[in-house]
Amino acid sequence: MTTQDLIPEIPSLLDTRLEAALRHRIDRKTKPLGALGRLETLMLRLGLILGTETPTLEDPQLMVFAADHGLAAHGVSAYPSDVTWQMVENFLAGGAAVSVLARQHGLTLSVVDAGVRHTFQPRPGLLIAKIAMGSADMLAGPAMSTEECATAVAAGKTLLQKRPGNVLLLGEMGIGNTSAASLLLARLGGYPLTDCVGRGTGLDDTQLRHKLDVLTRAMQRHPRANEPLAALAALGGLEIAMMVGAVLQAAVERRVIVVDGFITGAAVLVAAKLRPAVLERCVFAHRSHESGHRLMLETLRADPLLDLGLRLGEGSGAALAWPLLASACKVLAEMASFDTAGVSDKH
Amino acid sequence: MTTQDLIPEIPSLLDTRLEAALRHRIDRKTKPLGALGRLETLMLRLGLILGTETPTLEDPQLMVFAADHGLAAHGVSAYPSDVTWQMVENFLAGGAAVSVLARQHGLTLSVVDAGVRHTFQPRPGLLIAKIAMGSADMLAGPAMSTEECATAVAAGKTLLQKRPGNVLLLGEMGIGNTSAASLLLARLGGYPLTDCVGRGTGLDDTQLRHKLDVLTRAMQRHPRANEPLAALAALGGLEIAMMVGAVLQAAVERRVIVVDGFITGAAVLVAAKLRPAVLERCVFAHRSHESGHRLMLETLRADPLLDLGLRLGEGSGAALAWPLLASACKVLAEMASFDTAGVSDKH
Repeated sequence: MTTQDLIPEIPSLLDTRLEAALRHRIDRKTKPLGALGRLETLMLRLGLILGTETPTLEDPQLMVFAADHGLAAHGVSAYPSDVTWQMVENFLAGGAAVSVLARQHGLTLSVVDAGVRHTFQPRPGLLIAKIAMGSADMLAGPAMSTEECATAVAAGKTLLQKRPGNVLLLGEMGIGNTSAASLLLARLGGYPLTDCVGRGTGLDDTQLRHKLDVLTRAMQRHPRANEPLAALAALGGLEIAMMVGAVLQAAVERRVIVVDGFITGAAVLVAAKLRPAVLERCVFAHRSHESGHRLMLETLRADPLLDLGLRLGEGSGAALAWPLLASACKVLAEMASFDTAGVSDKH
Repeated sequence: MTTQDLIPEIPSLLDTRLEAALRHRIDRKTKPLGALGRLETLMLRLGLILGTETPTLEDPQLMVFAADHGLAAHGVSAYPSDVTWQMVENFLAGGAAVSVLARQHGLTLSVVDAGVRHTFQPRPGLLIAKIAMGSADMLAGPAMSTEECATAVAAGKTLLQKRPGNVLLLGEMGIGNTSAASLLLARLGGYPLTDCVGRGTGLDDTQLRHKLDVLTRAMQRHPRANEPLAALAALGGLEIAMMVGAVLQAAVERRVIVVDGFITGAAVLVAAKLRPAVLERCVFAHRSHESGHRLMLETLRADPLLDLGLRLGEGSGAALAWPLLASACKVLAEMASFDTAGVSDKH
């Protein structure tokens, strides 16, 4: 498969006529100009993505991509790798934060086994697309071979294609995956690693220094992995690669992509380096507490909706932001205009 | 009626046993310690207000207090006073932003006529508690007489007492009411007026200078109105006074008080100056775009949930923040613990 086959073209959504129509519609609502602040920006974005003055969100899909990381053996996380499969079970049993939030908001939750080091029994809500029993140790070689990485991206595209609805909410689980996200940010953004690495699930100072040391060696091990797909294969992870495919396919289909935190952001970063117009389809849910996320959001020119100091992943931030997207559509559809409501405009 | 009769005692919610039990419950959930950030702080607050480890929010009441302002005749707003009653009609017809958001989230919306310069036909959803046809011109005398102010506060208490449920979401409507809120902040907070005055519904630079000039004269006209109730009568408004009563009563009843933006914040400021423990019952919904709100939030030691550049009022920010309160309760009730889910804890 060539890169050309793997990575679809993604056109810009630029549509000055629709944008003007949306702005007019928003501005005639019974409120002072701009008084709904970033909810208005959100209305505009949702309208442009869905290509209509009256966007509606249909059958939202919250997909949690899970995989293990060879790097976890080097002690870059506060938790053991087994927590990845245990949390997958927790998602499916309905007991994780994201399970609760998905139920609250009527989001269809699917868990994707992209490469968890565990064999799951098939069951509803679990999409088994395992590429390997975790990524390889990137201090010894690339995290994924070129073929594995391409297969993961292609699998993400196919999985997304089969899901209904017009919204993808991204989530992830994988012990060690803040490390992969930090490496991708540093490499693709051209930043010093120290600006990209944080405490993940809760490292202390000594553990953080150790993580930085391990990641420095990973960067040195792969000095030529500079192109997006090469960096993804060398420094990424199976769930991140699969999310890259899902993001690209969602962008092709003009679905709204709700980006959660640091790790889903890394997948979007890779996708955007390949196809910049992906970003026009994204709504960034929140600014997380993870050090490095601020820099990632700047790199993606993202202005996230929430800033609640979250650092859980799973798609929990995307689920928490969801009602704001629903509100934007409802206000655009149902709020009266000055013309219809008989309310006086400015002096 | 003496102040003692009008202003109920409000005890502190300090309960170290319950607080420890809530923290333990939150910390044993299947997530890294603190990983749900300010959603965890919110869980703790809701538990302490409602006095239980498993808080549930029941029959939330969004009350929009509306009144006109004598000061509006001096051109302190971009909109004419008639917009107050027109927007009340819009709320009741279901066409305002807050109407749409209340429907979306199942919040019971009531509009309180605290002193709108208009005679409304009675109908469902409208609570007529009119004290006067708007407040008086505070450049000529106090905005309210001492009796009117006390009657408004008492009416707010009675109105709240009759509402079901355990949550009050505050909203307001009143052309000219950012002026009253700015004056109360300046007087009760001891701040220079320039730090408290903003563009409201959208004044230009010339209009803003004029507003500041009018408000400076209002401050000079009432140099001795320093105590909370005296400042409220001289510089406030009928909807603000009625909200002060509703807030005090909600605090007595240990309801959760969801504070919207700048004007509802001014009512909470007055109530908190009278009874500081009111603040323990408050959840601040958002940081608004109105200049002065940041200072007000600091004065109230508030850390609001959203920061979306809203400046609409109506309770729209409170309604937008509502799903986060619901999420906090659901996560606390339904999320699994490490003990029950079979997930490994830290190394």
